[in-house]
Amino acid sequence: MDFFEGSEKKVEIVLDEAAGDLRAKPEGFWRGIVDLSDASILSRLSNETCEAYLLSESSLFVWSDRLLMITCGRTRLARAAIGVIEAFGADALRSLIFQRKNEFVAHLQSTSFADDARAIGSLIPHTVYRFGDLDGHHTHLLHLDAPYAPDADDRTTEILMYHIEGPAADLLATPHQDRAAMRSAIRIERLEALGFLIDDFAFSPLGYSMNALAGGVYATLHVTPQGDASYVSFETNADLSGPMGALTDWLVGTFRPRSVDMMRFNAAATDLGPDMTPIIHNAAPNIAGYQVAFSHHARRLTGPSAPARLSDKDLL
Amino acid sequence: MDFFEGSEKKVEIVLDEAAGDLRAKPEGFWRGIVDLSDASILSRLSNETCEAYLLSESSLFVWSDRLLMITCGRTRLARAAIGVIEAFGADALRSLIFQRKNEFVAHLQSTSFADDARAIGSLIPHTVYRFGDLDGHHTHLLHLDAPYAPDADDRTTEILMYHIEGPAADLLATPHQDRAAMRSAIRIERLEALGFLIDDFAFSPLGYSMNALAGGVYATLHVTPQGDASYVSFETNADLSGPMGALTDWLVGTFRPRSVDMMRFNAAATDLGPDMTPIIHNAAPNIAGYQVAFSHHARRLTGPSAPARLSDKDLL
Repeated sequence: MDFFEGSEKKVEIVLDEAAGDLRAKPEGFWRGIVDLSDASILSRLSNETCEAYLLSESSLFVWSDRLLMITCGRTRLARAAIGVIEAFGADALRSLIFQRKNEFVAHLQSTSFADDARAIGSLIPHTVYRFGDLDGHHTHLLHLDAPYAPDADDRTTEILMYHIEGPAADLLATPHQDRAAMRSAIRIERLEALGFLIDDFAFSPLGYSMNALAGGVYATLHVTPQGDASYVSFETNADLSGPMGALTDWLVGTFRPRSVDMMRFNAAATDLGPDMTPIIHNAAPNIAGYQVAFSHHARRLTGPSAPARLSDKDLL
Repeated sequence: MDFFEGSEKKVEIVLDEAAGDLRAKPEGFWRGIVDLSDASILSRLSNETCEAYLLSESSLFVWSDRLLMITCGRTRLARAAIGVIEAFGADALRSLIFQRKNEFVAHLQSTSFADDARAIGSLIPHTVYRFGDLDGHHTHLLHLDAPYAPDADDRTTEILMYHIEGPAADLLATPHQDRAAMRSAIRIERLEALGFLIDDFAFSPLGYSMNALAGGVYATLHVTPQGDASYVSFETNADLSGPMGALTDWLVGTFRPRSVDMMRFNAAATDLGPDMTPIIHNAAPNIAGYQVAFSHHARRLTGPSAPARLSDKDLL
């Protein structure tokens, strides 16, 4: 089945002024950080506030005082997080939030969340949470124990889509598509109409990644279209309760997922449509300064489907 | 959190006459088979058709021409299955079905299903299925490729209950309860009223296992009450569409699970009550001679709950 683990680890780090302007760091510095995770930089998109790097496995965003790094596959994001802590010193950290989504196939990972949490946690005072249940969709979160008050426009919405269907999914699951075909399939003009500058990459034989910037707003999309482990992740700091709410319609309408996880930091819930039933909903009023909510939604069942018959090469 | 992996591996093997009467095998033979899986025999209940062994991790049932073995924790049931194949010879197999439910914490297992399937599959012609999706509740199944026509009363229903709640769950999650208290909490009189002979075991500090026989009907129950990985498995060959349907009401009413998996072989669906919404439903008309269906059901959400805050010892 050509399995690729789409589910991601993520770290967001805010540094104090002692760290200097992160955007002024040479690209070689970030290459070094990215290398630590076993990923590599593919390209860069810049605007007046942000440097957005597309990676071989997901994305890195760098602002003057903060960075966001997301990696998938078998990468070791904890090592990159530790690289940042060591480069600037734990005392320079204003906020650190490390997350790890449960994997499709956990036993194929190079580390567990417990390994990551022990490694990062050995360097900083921290608290750990699990949103969702161990036997279902869940995400682990470790944060620096430090008072932190996010800005009013500091919000994040993650929309993680499982089992995509429809024309875009079909095209993306067909090997060796070029970038133009992928852009057309995912109706990238909808993003452009919202004012986003786009940097994207078509992986071969399969996979598509995109970073997008519109002023102070970022968005990132990663598509793992493979068979019965298909997965699309999307994350943005846009206010989806305003005109940027068109992003949700675009995502759900384009990828037609059978189930969705949503993770929100100081962000309002966004409407996934009437077919999606919430199955899990965990919320906390103050985690590292943020209201945090995690929810899992499943599309209403229409009837039984066939089990998957697996060949020897499908055994993971 | 004192984690224990409740989810189970299971094998059912039917042998031809060349294998002789399995019930005539000395108990030492079965001790040897159980040892291979890293479990051990605790006790035995017999009636006119069956020897039912309670194990340190779940159960073994032996009839004249077949056996059913279920093990949980970090056991290696595939080794026991291979022990049976080697003891009687692959040519003596009429049917073999090996199943493995997805684990709460897959990376803590000693093997993966792929390992098990390769080991068993190296000895017999076989086909493999997965019911459910990799990212959600699912079960893998490997069966011997051989024509097999089950008897009319050869049916199995597995009811796997996650996140139990209510008075029985509370008592079972309190360490060092005695067997009498556990029997009372789970209202064992309901089973006795259906004519079952009971053999049960109270584990210390936590856990409860039960085998039950009523003529040609067996039932087996295993309770892992621990915290946020609580789990109860139940399996029977009873016809739940008749008077034995009281078993379902007893289970759902006693353990009040937040979600349930059901796996059925030539068995009608049993009603889990109006609060349970089906999320997954896979069905196949003929797998190793059986109509097989797997479904996952979640209780309707009533509102958000808090995430789990994890201490260092909770990191798995």
